[in-house]
Amino acid sequence: MKKIINDPSTVVVESLRGLALAHADILRIEEDPALVVRTDAPVAGKVAVISGGGSGHEPLHGGFVGLGMLHAAVPGAVFTSPTPDAVQAAVTATASGAGALLIVKNYTGDVLNFETAAELAEADGVEVRSVIVDDDVAVKDSTYTAGRRGVGGTVLLEKIAGAAAERGDSLDAVEALARKVIGQVRSIGVALTPPTVPHAGEPSFTLADNEIEFGIGIHGEPGRERIAAEPADALLERLVDAVVTDLPFADGDKVLLFTNSMGGTPLLELYLAHGIAERLLGERGITVERRLVGPYITSLEMQGISLTLLKLDDELTELWDTPVNTAALRWGI
Amino acid sequence: MKKIINDPSTVVVESLRGLALAHADILRIEEDPALVVRTDAPVAGKVAVISGGGSGHEPLHGGFVGLGMLHAAVPGAVFTSPTPDAVQAAVTATASGAGALLIVKNYTGDVLNFETAAELAEADGVEVRSVIVDDDVAVKDSTYTAGRRGVGGTVLLEKIAGAAAERGDSLDAVEALARKVIGQVRSIGVALTPPTVPHAGEPSFTLADNEIEFGIGIHGEPGRERIAAEPADALLERLVDAVVTDLPFADGDKVLLFTNSMGGTPLLELYLAHGIAERLLGERGITVERRLVGPYITSLEMQGISLTLLKLDDELTELWDTPVNTAALRWGI
Repeated sequence: MKKIINDPSTVVVESLRGLALAHADILRIEEDPALVVRTDAPVAGKVAVISGGGSGHEPLHGGFVGLGMLHAAVPGAVFTSPTPDAVQAAVTATASGAGALLIVKNYTGDVLNFETAAELAEADGVEVRSVIVDDDVAVKDSTYTAGRRGVGGTVLLEKIAGAAAERGDSLDAVEALARKVIGQVRSIGVALTPPTVPHAGEPSFTLADNEIEFGIGIHGEPGRERIAAEPADALLERLVDAVVTDLPFADGDKVLLFTNSMGGTPLLELYLAHGIAERLLGERGITVERRLVGPYITSLEMQGISLTLLKLDDELTELWDTPVNTAALRWGI
Repeated sequence: MKKIINDPSTVVVESLRGLALAHADILRIEEDPALVVRTDAPVAGKVAVISGGGSGHEPLHGGFVGLGMLHAAVPGAVFTSPTPDAVQAAVTATASGAGALLIVKNYTGDVLNFETAAELAEADGVEVRSVIVDDDVAVKDSTYTAGRRGVGGTVLLEKIAGAAAERGDSLDAVEALARKVIGQVRSIGVALTPPTVPHAGEPSFTLADNEIEFGIGIHGEPGRERIAAEPADALLERLVDAVVTDLPFADGDKVLLFTNSMGGTPLLELYLAHGIAERLLGERGITVERRLVGPYITSLEMQGISLTLLKLDDELTELWDTPVNTAALRWGI
């Protein structure tokens, strides 16, 4: 294993220090427990939108802390859920009187620890709601999951829920909106190479030279099937078909298409994939009205991509377009 | 080789199509010859700032086309210089009466082809100036280079020259400013893994499991030496020392620190490296006043990083801070 680290046990906190130095105008960090918090939190009168999960998926979630998106992120160890007390500390650091929404990706450890944290925070007198993202259509259950996994839809939800909180929506309203987004977002991923977790020191799985994992999870969990590598046109058709037929998305739908790099994919390939995906959606009568292309929910250095489709309406489009100022997403600022 | 492509011969143009679909508000493309052009070009009364070079370094240069940065980018085949007629076409597409500045990275093919293009454009009646970026302190000459290579400093120069053009500086003034930036910017890189060029089909070089290439070039060219992998603190000290002692940067200097991913480096490691670099510069009395952290000049999926230091003064800081609206960099918009 070759990595630019000092010690696997300090990699997360050392990385957070760099994040804080690079973006001191947007966020601050705490080290014990590890937190990433908006510099202006708590924001009076606004619902605090909080997410978190294992590290190794950067810029998720710390890179999405800032105006118009998350109020705090709770990074666990690499591919490990954050503890309940860390999540509770994030609520304490950001909740004003308007309550807090926890955005939880559907992994067993995250669900349990965020649930406990919500109980602790409620005992402190903060009104807390939780939503669970389970947008990955690849498999029904998975290595760390009862039910579907939460993947790329989380990024879109964090933007839209953050925008709703910013405009002053009530906790009820932000929660309802979050549930609506979760209901109409779907994702699928594919891996060409495995990631290497620092404390493991070896690749998480092995793929043959001509083999790819269709339906990969963001921790390198197995997907639907291992298949032979294929040309981009065929691969994108496979990915688009899996997502579109699930909701299903239909002729006439307007969507946000999020073409995500799993971390190690060259941007040259990512934009190529995005272009094909847009074309294939167009052929099905689905109009791409908004796009996000880049490495936004990753699995360390894993090569691969995921596609996320969110069915848009006027409200969601408007909330997507509002200003955001985070380390990873910035517009209207 | 596993890549998300259809055919090595069409990868650049297919990728450009995706870029154009994703960012139609900012740029348009031409396919023959391949160009990326600001939607509002030519911009009346403003110097056209143009760059280009081999593809495979995305988001360089097409990702930097837009308000406040490049007016056009000329992508060659992967790791291959664009042809003179393509560069000439970029000048024709963007030059208003104010002339054009060509930003050329110091590689033999680029220098020759941009020089020929400048002559062709001058024959067409456009006033053209060229500047050559040679900021890489790693080696004196290199595989594709007489003199030092042009690397990360190019990104910073494109922002600052673009800002000067946007505020209406004359061609003389933009050129003088570009030469000033080139005079006070220095870079060094390191690779942990090689890239794989699509039409080659095999990794560009081989490194042992515990070996890294110190002073790597952005095409995988050899650097200063192959060394054993070392902890991040030691590696960053080595990188910082190489850059700081070259100009040299001195106690009391104010700088922009650009911590760049070569493509495949996890963001977790990149921010960790950035944090260490800031600390080491501080220990030398060098104040980091601006930062850029991310994959901005890459070598396909190569894992590794580069550090670029630009000595700042009030003028450069002010130009860095002006609004920019490109696929890869966006602020103040």
